[in-house]
Amino acid sequence: MMFPIEKFGVKIMSIGFFVERNQSLIWRGPMAANAVSQLFENTEWGDIDYMIIDFPPGTGDIQLTTVQKLNLTGAIIVTTPQEIALNDARKATSMFTNPDLKVSVLGIIENMSWFTPAEHPDEKYYLFGKGGGHKLALEFDTWLLGQIPLVMEVGEAAEQGLSVFNQSNTQIVSSFENITELLISKMGEKQ
Amino acid sequence: MMFPIEKFGVKIMSIGFFVERNQSLIWRGPMAANAVSQLFENTEWGDIDYMIIDFPPGTGDIQLTTVQKLNLTGAIIVTTPQEIALNDARKATSMFTNPDLKVSVLGIIENMSWFTPAEHPDEKYYLFGKGGGHKLALEFDTWLLGQIPLVMEVGEAAEQGLSVFNQSNTQIVSSFENITELLISKMGEKQ
Repeated sequence: MMFPIEKFGVKIMSIGFFVERNQSLIWRGPMAANAVSQLFENTEWGDIDYMIIDFPPGTGDIQLTTVQKLNLTGAIIVTTPQEIALNDARKATSMFTNPDLKVSVLGIIENMSWFTPAEHPDEKYYLFGKGGGHKLALEFDTWLLGQIPLVMEVGEAAEQGLSVFNQSNTQIVSSFENITELLISKMGEKQ
Repeated sequence: MMFPIEKFGVKIMSIGFFVERNQSLIWRGPMAANAVSQLFENTEWGDIDYMIIDFPPGTGDIQLTTVQKLNLTGAIIVTTPQEIALNDARKATSMFTNPDLKVSVLGIIENMSWFTPAEHPDEKYYLFGKGGGHKLALEFDTWLLGQIPLVMEVGEAAEQGLSVFNQSNTQIVSSFENITELLISKMGEKQ
């Protein structure tokens, strides 16, 4: 059995832990899909509240095998607001909801919704357009769980291994908290 | 044979042209890789100067099959500057250069290098950190072909089907022109 890394009460396991930084895994689909199943099944997860699988982009082997093997409560679709990103998000959403897979969508999260420079706290720059997450939620008759602004300190904190919940920027903390609460309530409805 | 769509002297072909907007292709690797080969081989490309293949993220079937089937002049690695993006770019770079595939890297392009609000033309916000593209180029002993700033009008123009070379923002036009010229000269060296 493999043991997950734990920080801030979150256990994580990734195929990336087993390869050198500069090494790529040039794997055909069945090998990649098999590896994902192993991470799931052969890890000593212990007693956990939720299991979150962060999929790579796409609608291929990894997504397909995982959904067929595991009984998922639901899918969360994360997208930036511009049309070209919505196109990919639409394909992912329709993959999960299609009659063969039948995974319900818990909601949409819009990421990088706008940028507010620390020097100009009253300004909002919609770098990737506006309203994309809302539009997608309407199209698929699901919820827009929240919008996450682009905050430079969050990216820097992540690279230093710090939690997004310890930021001095209260806007970003509350956007994550709101999404978390909404998701927990949606998961409750499913049970 | 299939006929490519042509605009601004550029012919394009995509598997996306053959599916409905909301439809996903839930394909296992061999099918996806086969489709890419067909787009390449069964399209009436005519007399073209360069063929550019825009790969999806990852180091799986599609990349592997294409590189094995076609004789590529080189790979261009596009990354944003933050460490988490560099990690993926490193994997892609090491895939192309590995002894089995032996595709040389023509250089690195750093995308979304900084953001300058139209209202504050003298300010630069390094949204995703600074220097990542340069760092990667050094690591792989290759060129940083250029840095492309995040310009909101470019994204909007792309969604309207307009060319990036017709922008009033001269900085973005010249960053694309410089990259193009550098690439053409690098391709010349290869022949």
